[in-house]
Amino acid sequence: MTLPPEDHPRYKSLLAREKLVGAADVVAKQGLIAHGRGEAFDYLLGERTCPSAIIAINAAASLIRKASNPVISVNGNVVALAAREVAHLSEASRAKVEVNLFHRTPERVASLVKMMDDVGIQALGMKPDDVISGLSSERAKCCSEGIGAADVVLVPLEDGDRCQALINMGKQVITIDLNPLSRTAQTAHVTIVDELTRCLPLITDAVRDGVSVDNFDNEKNLKDVLQFISDNLND
Amino acid sequence: MTLPPEDHPRYKSLLAREKLVGAADVVAKQGLIAHGRGEAFDYLLGERTCPSAIIAINAAASLIRKASNPVISVNGNVVALAAREVAHLSEASRAKVEVNLFHRTPERVASLVKMMDDVGIQALGMKPDDVISGLSSERAKCCSEGIGAADVVLVPLEDGDRCQALINMGKQVITIDLNPLSRTAQTAHVTIVDELTRCLPLITDAVRDGVSVDNFDNEKNLKDVLQFISDNLND
Repeated sequence: MTLPPEDHPRYKSLLAREKLVGAADVVAKQGLIAHGRGEAFDYLLGERTCPSAIIAINAAASLIRKASNPVISVNGNVVALAAREVAHLSEASRAKVEVNLFHRTPERVASLVKMMDDVGIQALGMKPDDVISGLSSERAKCCSEGIGAADVVLVPLEDGDRCQALINMGKQVITIDLNPLSRTAQTAHVTIVDELTRCLPLITDAVRDGVSVDNFDNEKNLKDVLQFISDNLND
Repeated sequence: MTLPPEDHPRYKSLLAREKLVGAADVVAKQGLIAHGRGEAFDYLLGERTCPSAIIAINAAASLIRKASNPVISVNGNVVALAAREVAHLSEASRAKVEVNLFHRTPERVASLVKMMDDVGIQALGMKPDDVISGLSSERAKCCSEGIGAADVVLVPLEDGDRCQALINMGKQVITIDLNPLSRTAQTAHVTIVDELTRCLPLITDAVRDGVSVDNFDNEKNLKDVLQFISDNLND
């Protein structure tokens, strides 16, 4: 991994990029392109957590706290970028972690389960025995004691089809997506438009603080994010 | 290569993504991330050539037409996405094509020269005998009869350092960059904020049409692009 100089104004962004490039065996090539899309939107957000993201973070923490069986669904990008942050949220909320991949191979699942094990989390995913209805073949596979039984699922960096399929199954879906216009962002119940490693610790803090939110409006919140970006562009 | 369905509303964007993933031996992993950034900005442009891009395209064609020694500098992403479109512009303008890489290896240069050869262009780059002043080691290498002697250089998808270095050498620099805020976009003499395969044929047409532009203001044009994106976001 080529480390960027620590005094570089975009150090965190460059470090995240190198982390992903260095984890090429577990990150799909399409995952690298998806990361680039995120980088662009984060650039437009000024690479900081915007006020609307804080509102969504609190709504997410509230949902996770009140869930009977919350699950954090992770893919290659999430583990490569934020295994430790996922572990902390899992510990604080007692949410299970499941490796669930769009480009699934047994080898990639095993590598990602190992990477979560390295940060102290026994992740599900190796023995899928259930399916997400409405998805095809490999993409549908999940674990009955994880996503199968979950009432609340946090799916960071998700694809639109799977987000919709989870909602169709009656689950409450929280996503983390830097693109406020993506189908995932528009479909989820709670969309946090923020960078993964920035917002996960904030969700963990909010869970620990016992935050409770009753009146969250995702559509309005996304409009506010777009306004925030638009104002940034005009400055 | 997994072909997207032709009736998909974002067919061209998905096709470009698959082309790059399929060309993984010549496209750097960082190039995949860079492509993702471009995708995001193109999304914000509505995936169409905006009026400000047309103005920049005409200014670029005018510069290329009037140059003594115009050169098109290409990298892995450019050849993987648009080898044919580059060939057409080269033929119409008699601009030379040089393979010039940020992550240079002799193997990657050879593969890219071969890919240009497949579309009828004998590209320079295999035997670098000159340097771009102010850049380090591999990154600086170029050909004396190509970029070395060029008065006008078209450098699509360029990095900011090299764009600045070419300008410092007194060359007129045209770039194609979907991010109007990038250092390259802000530094070049003419910045076309548009997707590569969309705008290259338009430059070729403008060269063939003998377009002449005398009063182009890149800074103003970039501001107009930002306004266009901002208006799109608010709609």
